[in-house]
Amino acid sequence: MTSAPAPIVAVIGGGQLARMMAEPAAALGIPLRLLAEASGVSAAQVIPDQQVGDYTDLATLREVTAGCEVVTFDHEHVPTDHLHALESDLAVRPGPDALVHAQDKGVMRSRLTDLGVPCPRHALVSSVSDVEQFGFPCVLKTTRGGYDGKGVWFVDGPEDCEPAFESGAAILAEERVDFRRELSALVARSPSGQVAAWPVVASTQRDGICHEVIAPAPDLDPELAVQAQRIAMSVAGELGVTGVLAVELFETQDKRILVNELAMRPHNTGHWTQDGSVTSQFENHLRAVLDLPLGAPDARVRWTVMVNILGGARQTGHLYDGYRHAMARDPRLRVHLYGKELRPGRKVGHVNAYGDDLDDCLERARHAAAWFAGDLGDESE
Amino acid sequence: MTSAPAPIVAVIGGGQLARMMAEPAAALGIPLRLLAEASGVSAAQVIPDQQVGDYTDLATLREVTAGCEVVTFDHEHVPTDHLHALESDLAVRPGPDALVHAQDKGVMRSRLTDLGVPCPRHALVSSVSDVEQFGFPCVLKTTRGGYDGKGVWFVDGPEDCEPAFESGAAILAEERVDFRRELSALVARSPSGQVAAWPVVASTQRDGICHEVIAPAPDLDPELAVQAQRIAMSVAGELGVTGVLAVELFETQDKRILVNELAMRPHNTGHWTQDGSVTSQFENHLRAVLDLPLGAPDARVRWTVMVNILGGARQTGHLYDGYRHAMARDPRLRVHLYGKELRPGRKVGHVNAYGDDLDDCLERARHAAAWFAGDLGDESE
Repeated sequence: MTSAPAPIVAVIGGGQLARMMAEPAAALGIPLRLLAEASGVSAAQVIPDQQVGDYTDLATLREVTAGCEVVTFDHEHVPTDHLHALESDLAVRPGPDALVHAQDKGVMRSRLTDLGVPCPRHALVSSVSDVEQFGFPCVLKTTRGGYDGKGVWFVDGPEDCEPAFESGAAILAEERVDFRRELSALVARSPSGQVAAWPVVASTQRDGICHEVIAPAPDLDPELAVQAQRIAMSVAGELGVTGVLAVELFETQDKRILVNELAMRPHNTGHWTQDGSVTSQFENHLRAVLDLPLGAPDARVRWTVMVNILGGARQTGHLYDGYRHAMARDPRLRVHLYGKELRPGRKVGHVNAYGDDLDDCLERARHAAAWFAGDLGDESE
Repeated sequence: MTSAPAPIVAVIGGGQLARMMAEPAAALGIPLRLLAEASGVSAAQVIPDQQVGDYTDLATLREVTAGCEVVTFDHEHVPTDHLHALESDLAVRPGPDALVHAQDKGVMRSRLTDLGVPCPRHALVSSVSDVEQFGFPCVLKTTRGGYDGKGVWFVDGPEDCEPAFESGAAILAEERVDFRRELSALVARSPSGQVAAWPVVASTQRDGICHEVIAPAPDLDPELAVQAQRIAMSVAGELGVTGVLAVELFETQDKRILVNELAMRPHNTGHWTQDGSVTSQFENHLRAVLDLPLGAPDARVRWTVMVNILGGARQTGHLYDGYRHAMARDPRLRVHLYGKELRPGRKVGHVNAYGDDLDDCLERARHAAAWFAGDLGDESE
């Protein structure tokens, strides 16, 4: 008798999220098959069974998923119609009826409002006069395709609105929330309905990109923490999400929480789980899309701090040059690099620092990330 | 400016040790290039940059290491002459002058004795009369090529010796040590001379194959623990080891420790480090062979138990069929499978269970490993 190979999981998109799925996939003996945008992209460096092609082409999607048991995603950009078509061939997780809520902010706002989930005030707008009626200041967002601060405009008056409408995309206006900070509630949900909820974290953005995450969110009112987890679990269930769901939240100055964004895939606010929790978001994403029982999401340690490495202004060296200093300075630092070239503002990796003292974790993670990014000179030591 | 890629590490041998190096290599952004014995072997499933070929052929070794900064190994079987030849092209880590001590037990015993390291009584023997002179009962071992109980004979009298000498190999006779248990002291050493020592563990063999590891070794006399770590650090330094060195030890009934075997690569007695320590042996092996600063080897938790999954007698299912039960029963279980087919006695994976209660960890890990191996029926639950 020979053991059958485990079912093959197709992953669409060759970014760092697919790359980081490859680590638990190797440990669990789960074969991955990758559709990469180009040869040598981040995930293509670590997944042998790969094909280069266009994820907007249905024939390519059918070719790469042939023989796979399930298909999942590095990003949310596969056209909804293609996802519906693929469902006749294999399990699509998350499925198109769930994924549309992460693809289209208009659909998401409408559905969450129907579910009674607290959201910022919002309206679809198609002209400057619509925005005037909604009221300034506000935020304009393309309903589809925005990420990492792209497709988002903070507008204070009619004169600021032109770029949003020039884009030709459908636009959502949202109240500019006076928030105390941003939180993220991360859950994994399997098709059988099991849900695992990680501790709620606090995240800090820089130029619209997630910069820093503290797990758990310091001094979070326990009632708000429970409310945030309940919202995430309820949204996952009501929308039929399979895999990881990240619910990004605003904590308002008057201690309410409002849903900002949804992501249906491993998320930057969950990278801390690689070193700080029993089961990482990447492992539970794989377990969820295969409908396997989920791993425990508990924290392993009091505090974990994640800081992104973004290509900085002064890039006078190579990422690898940063290893010697960062590793010698902090033997407990956990380094995660994506095999990407440095470019200003580009996410090329992250570091996790964990321990019992939050200030110490913050200092270690911030220093290392700044060092890798080239934002610190030799004089910093 | 673009970042240069990190240096490429060539890995000779496509077994599970190379496979498990791929996980931290992906996290650290270190590209691996693999020489695999055949297509589709364990490591070839997870390392895209690969070549199939014969590691006893120097031209093949030269081809696969071209453009790499360093070459390291999944096993200790590459001919010493080839390693010397490769040294003119790139860094060979561990180098041939160190590795010979893991390849040849005669050389190892002679050198350790010169260094004053406590060893079982031993002698090279070439005939039954030599063994009679050495004294029965004893253990006969081929000086080269043995592993996992192969090339080892427990002999009680002249009539037992024939198989050893029939092999035609050089034979070492060793005292049969009356040991209380087996210990393992694991260290990583970099060419710069930095050494990281993991806690000393207790290991249990079954049919000559490592079966179970408890980290740290329960109730180990602190003086013996320090002595074991000192021996490992001293051997690593004196022999010029680069990468991971495992020193397998006997703890005698009268509380002495004697060196049993050396291995110069990540080792089965170090698999617990993947989930139980700050830095795994696989990550520190890579950092060491690249001469990067080493990660902290401290335990993250009070106890970690590793149990190997060996193909069992009743293999009525597939490895993957075991996932659902094992994962549902124990959401904190850490599963590591090697992408291998089940065969009786073959190592196909291992599980780690960690926590504050040793008995609980033992029960969880043993149950899961037995379940995966097919040694438990449905009635066990």
